[in-house]
Amino acid sequence: MSVKALFAALAISLLSACAAPQLRGTGDLGVVIERATGRVEVVETSGRSMLGKVAGLGDLSHASVNYSRDGRYAYVFGRDGGLSKVDLLELRIVKRVLQSGNSIGGAISQDGKLVAVANYTPGGVKVFDSNTLDLVADIPALDAAGKPSKVVGLVDAPGNRFVWSLFESGEIWVADMKTPASPVLQKFRNIGKEPYDAMITADGRYYLAGLFGEDGLAMLDLWNIPAGVKRVLNGYGRGEQKLPVFKMPHLEGWAATGNELLVPAVGRHEVLVVDQNRWNETGRIPVHGQPVFVVARPDNRQVWVNFAFPHNDTVQVIDVPSRKIVHTFKPGKGVLHIEFTPRGEHAWLSLRDENRVEIYDSESFARLGDLQADSPSGIFFTHRAHRTGL
Amino acid sequence: MSVKALFAALAISLLSACAAPQLRGTGDLGVVIERATGRVEVVETSGRSMLGKVAGLGDLSHASVNYSRDGRYAYVFGRDGGLSKVDLLELRIVKRVLQSGNSIGGAISQDGKLVAVANYTPGGVKVFDSNTLDLVADIPALDAAGKPSKVVGLVDAPGNRFVWSLFESGEIWVADMKTPASPVLQKFRNIGKEPYDAMITADGRYYLAGLFGEDGLAMLDLWNIPAGVKRVLNGYGRGEQKLPVFKMPHLEGWAATGNELLVPAVGRHEVLVVDQNRWNETGRIPVHGQPVFVVARPDNRQVWVNFAFPHNDTVQVIDVPSRKIVHTFKPGKGVLHIEFTPRGEHAWLSLRDENRVEIYDSESFARLGDLQADSPSGIFFTHRAHRTGL
Repeated sequence: MSVKALFAALAISLLSACAAPQLRGTGDLGVVIERATGRVEVVETSGRSMLGKVAGLGDLSHASVNYSRDGRYAYVFGRDGGLSKVDLLELRIVKRVLQSGNSIGGAISQDGKLVAVANYTPGGVKVFDSNTLDLVADIPALDAAGKPSKVVGLVDAPGNRFVWSLFESGEIWVADMKTPASPVLQKFRNIGKEPYDAMITADGRYYLAGLFGEDGLAMLDLWNIPAGVKRVLNGYGRGEQKLPVFKMPHLEGWAATGNELLVPAVGRHEVLVVDQNRWNETGRIPVHGQPVFVVARPDNRQVWVNFAFPHNDTVQVIDVPSRKIVHTFKPGKGVLHIEFTPRGEHAWLSLRDENRVEIYDSESFARLGDLQADSPSGIFFTHRAHRTGL
Repeated sequence: MSVKALFAALAISLLSACAAPQLRGTGDLGVVIERATGRVEVVETSGRSMLGKVAGLGDLSHASVNYSRDGRYAYVFGRDGGLSKVDLLELRIVKRVLQSGNSIGGAISQDGKLVAVANYTPGGVKVFDSNTLDLVADIPALDAAGKPSKVVGLVDAPGNRFVWSLFESGEIWVADMKTPASPVLQKFRNIGKEPYDAMITADGRYYLAGLFGEDGLAMLDLWNIPAGVKRVLNGYGRGEQKLPVFKMPHLEGWAATGNELLVPAVGRHEVLVVDQNRWNETGRIPVHGQPVFVVARPDNRQVWVNFAFPHNDTVQVIDVPSRKIVHTFKPGKGVLHIEFTPRGEHAWLSLRDENRVEIYDSESFARLGDLQADSPSGIFFTHRAHRTGL
């Protein structure tokens, strides 16, 4: 190679090395899950554009995402037990581990140092270093007799804790991760039959598990652990199992609006209003179909609702103070998820069967634009890094 | 120059051009105001380190900061009317305008496109394009007779609105900025004597202005604008003006903890408990001195309080459910501000007279470390970009 050619080659390689990833803030980034293709689409919400796609993430049906505390890395939890760390700036997978045969979501610790994954097969929780994805702790989910359970409803809680539920054995476990390699476990047994999902309130105080095998919810007040798990909202789900339930609503889809929770009824065309101090039902709002996600706009003034098949082409908006539906619209087929921008000016909707994401003004309801995406499901923006339980 | 020397020079210049600002997320960044030197210190909360300092920001006594929605840029509002846009990644001032003779803080619009500044001299609000800092709207603060007022208590509100108060004329104005160059103003007159500061609740619903000239607070419910401004908390400040008030507490320092606000009493060694639904006082918590900032940990379980001189060497922690003081400590002289990391695991304190920032574990209260800073005052982390009224 001549000196001139070497010179040119060096210049090009240096330039391409530094030109590739653009210096930018990460506060307005997010990902859209492309469930059918094992990819995520990286998006930014200021200009409402796609930055690129990252492939090779495995089975992303029922995938979820957490973020590193700097907002640069997305931890993608796949259904196949894959845990992938995706760099949103360099648009690449930094590390990927197949940590079990079948998993159902995860959580990142309050200090951002630990990523935990809930597993079906084999059951249990694995905890990884968020930087390296090295295994830090492996916590089997065995009941008192030593039988394994599927783990569901894994969330983070203040005090660098994780909380989860055991499906078969009907237990709630709290893990204090202050010494990551030696989790301190508290186990609550006989909390109810077959907890199938759970949520934690935004303040990190109340952990609520939905029960597949009976009515009501199991609640643990993390500010009063000695009081143990109590049963609340005893009517929730009563008799609903006899109705055709097209999709069990996610508990993460519950909307907290000050003193009230707005909750999807199971199998009914209703959103339930729950008093968050007394934990009883105070009202029902008739809606267009079986609600799946009931999502509060960040100012809590509105709640947006999507629905199970065959009503999953429709979105309704509830005005919280009046409890009235103020807007109904049909964006298209297969509305799977709703995500608001951090301060709530826009709502992003994923339309799986239309292969696009649509963006709406949350005050005028004007359609602002759309982005192409292959079978989009979950949409996750990076401000979740700064919230408990998201 | 020989080919070899040219080669080396090119390599160095290309490397230095691209090596300078490191690719990184912005979700864990923040700034510390160095009030005496006109600088900000850029910090990161994951490794608890200083990234660098940016100088040339003018008079930073009583400075405040807002963030761009991507978390990359800090808008620094100086006392001298200076508005500076600081790039946290490149550690430099991108743009600086001296927009008035004397100003008192600002706000960024919900959509992130507009930065507004509240001015003393001359009074009024100037609104700038957040990208270019070009002037978009200039709104004088004139009463019905055409007399100018100082503007205080400027905040952002949902619906791309700004809200502020007029000190001399006793008014609250709401500006709808949907068409930025043509703000639509709603003016509420006779709201009370000399509003000196204001805050908006985290949901962007209630705007509350403190009154220097009389007791009580002026409240505007932005969900019910036709109801107009009401007087609430009539006892607030009653008779307190006769006591020596060492520092009027900031209203931004009020802590919302679910249904309650914890509020610094004016001139008294007490924190007031206010029912946020009825807007009456329901309790008083005796504290070590005249409270200045009453800051809720993000999970609302604790509230940290600092004090006016001569008690400004001390911090107290209130346990919210029991309303008891669970910890009292003396970090050093001149504790001016308290800022929690986004999910609340650490509290950062600025110690003006010790020239350092200290970092504490918010659960064990262990001191985790410190950073040098020249006369530090306000500490502002980038997650504020995603919150209303911060």
